[in-house]
Amino acid sequence: MTRRDDATALPAMEGRGFYNRNSAMQAAGIAVLAPLWDRACRTVAVDEAPLVVVDYAASQGRNSMAPMRAAIETLRARTRPDRPIEIVHTDLPSNDFASLFRALEEDPASYRSGLDGIYISAIGRSYFEQLLPDGRATLGWNTWSMQWLSEGVGGAADHALAGMTADPALAAAVRARQAADWRRFLAVRARELRRGGRLLTAYTARAEAEAGWEWLLGSLWEAILDLGRDGLLTAEEQRRLTIPIGLRTLAEIEAPFKAGDVRGLTLEHAELVRVPDPFRADFDRTGDARLFAQRHADTTRAWSGPALAGLLGPRDDNGAVIDALFARLAGRLAAAPQTHEPTLAVVLLRRD
Amino acid sequence: MTRRDDATALPAMEGRGFYNRNSAMQAAGIAVLAPLWDRACRTVAVDEAPLVVVDYAASQGRNSMAPMRAAIETLRARTRPDRPIEIVHTDLPSNDFASLFRALEEDPASYRSGLDGIYISAIGRSYFEQLLPDGRATLGWNTWSMQWLSEGVGGAADHALAGMTADPALAAAVRARQAADWRRFLAVRARELRRGGRLLTAYTARAEAEAGWEWLLGSLWEAILDLGRDGLLTAEEQRRLTIPIGLRTLAEIEAPFKAGDVRGLTLEHAELVRVPDPFRADFDRTGDARLFAQRHADTTRAWSGPALAGLLGPRDDNGAVIDALFARLAGRLAAAPQTHEPTLAVVLLRRD
Repeated sequence: MTRRDDATALPAMEGRGFYNRNSAMQAAGIAVLAPLWDRACRTVAVDEAPLVVVDYAASQGRNSMAPMRAAIETLRARTRPDRPIEIVHTDLPSNDFASLFRALEEDPASYRSGLDGIYISAIGRSYFEQLLPDGRATLGWNTWSMQWLSEGVGGAADHALAGMTADPALAAAVRARQAADWRRFLAVRARELRRGGRLLTAYTARAEAEAGWEWLLGSLWEAILDLGRDGLLTAEEQRRLTIPIGLRTLAEIEAPFKAGDVRGLTLEHAELVRVPDPFRADFDRTGDARLFAQRHADTTRAWSGPALAGLLGPRDDNGAVIDALFARLAGRLAAAPQTHEPTLAVVLLRRD
Repeated sequence: MTRRDDATALPAMEGRGFYNRNSAMQAAGIAVLAPLWDRACRTVAVDEAPLVVVDYAASQGRNSMAPMRAAIETLRARTRPDRPIEIVHTDLPSNDFASLFRALEEDPASYRSGLDGIYISAIGRSYFEQLLPDGRATLGWNTWSMQWLSEGVGGAADHALAGMTADPALAAAVRARQAADWRRFLAVRARELRRGGRLLTAYTARAEAEAGWEWLLGSLWEAILDLGRDGLLTAEEQRRLTIPIGLRTLAEIEAPFKAGDVRGLTLEHAELVRVPDPFRADFDRTGDARLFAQRHADTTRAWSGPALAGLLGPRDDNGAVIDALFARLAGRLAAAPQTHEPTLAVVLLRRD
């Protein structure tokens, strides 16, 4: 759950490297994807046309380093070691591109480090638009973003996450928005990908029974209620603090393909997996519930903090309220630690 | 004089839109270039290969809007109205790309406004590196940047601008650095441009007799000395405040071509012009010397402020000193207003 794709509203992620430093959950999810990404890189059509790898929703880039490096190595092994490769990172206009470019230049983990012939660019525009000319992209990579609704559908009086409300009308609005977003995303990617191209997209989703977010975001909702009881948030503000994220089921992901509505793309692979908790092993070893909770709270803040600050709106003490909210969250998580293993939808598409 | 191309050091331009709001001088220079840019757009080779226009050293983008729009219109008139066109804005990693992307999305003056099929990206890397694969660029546009040295050559004890020092050793170091930078810039552009491509580059330079910066930057040096007399700057700090900009002569610009050292590029056009003072007409009408001076001081700060702040180094009152410096500059300019008409070198290159 890393970002929000409403170009009209909020900063996508916490800036100044905070997100980069607090995205271990996302990194764990990306590790899960490595075999499927390798398959995409090995099977994608390559010829003398420029090789262009697109990293959709790159954020500050940290979690893009390993998959981009893997793509470069596999594509060069399949063609020639000095084959020029273009990498395009996309995100919202408000994204912290300066951190991304700096990391690419300076970070020893940069996928360009030590390599020649790698040409990197960025596109600051919502991926619900066509971002590249027809047929330009060889490979696409997109993780932890497509759970964000393209626009909000209103506040929930019973949860911090739009996709986890029990309100039938709101839940239906979330489903409708997500279905439309998914079709739009697929339609523009189908134009951008060249024939034989591959797109891997992975985002948090839900098994029928559970989402995997019950502990973390249930606690976030409880923290919001805490602040309400303390007089820090009005009832209206508590309602407004609804992160515009939905959780698709596998059936919802497959639906447009089964309906024959996705021209040019074939669903090669779609499954739900559980992402391992990156902080659990340390916790089991040390028993330090406070540290375990703080790490989860920081990770949650890194992807949701700017969205919540925007939803809270222009209060003079906006920053202090968000600080208080995540302090409460950390306290609640420490008091009742559980394993956080969110559900991830893993989807590989082929351009026909 | 808009930017600095040392990726290791300073922010290139004042951020948060200050540069966009205070770049009328640069805009005036760009207006001077319109006929030559039109010639480049009309004569560049076009076929079915992707049309890619590269805006080197884009800063926050404001001064790129008109030339990019002109290129789109001319290229589409020469091919077809819906021809896809890619625009690539490059600048240092530290550049304020968020302002650039926002302006492209939201500013009514955005060259994309009302158009389909325009694909925009950004590259955050020094243009002394090869930024695009071989032969990818159709047209290149670069203004007000190549006067910046790729790295500093030390402080001057007699001027605020490295290129205007009377110290023979320092002046020689500036000339050597600028000669090497120019050759490097041309070499990597020659790789990026496709055959028949065109590159327009324009930067402030010097006629043999004068540079056109005597009043403005002479006053800046006097303002530095003022702060020294007031005890705000040590002698060492005064020396250190040397903007790493040089001013090439026409002969220096032509030298590598005459020597046959520029493989693949032909010098189609090179001349020196004077850029009209954008604030002079208002001043003549109103007689408001204070406003006239403030506008010139703000314009100067927009391109030089971050560089000077970096050169001053980590003082707790760094921001206050820079404020004081530009207040002094405004005072001096108001006390003795003159017309500011800097010399601009205008260069058009053809890729053979």
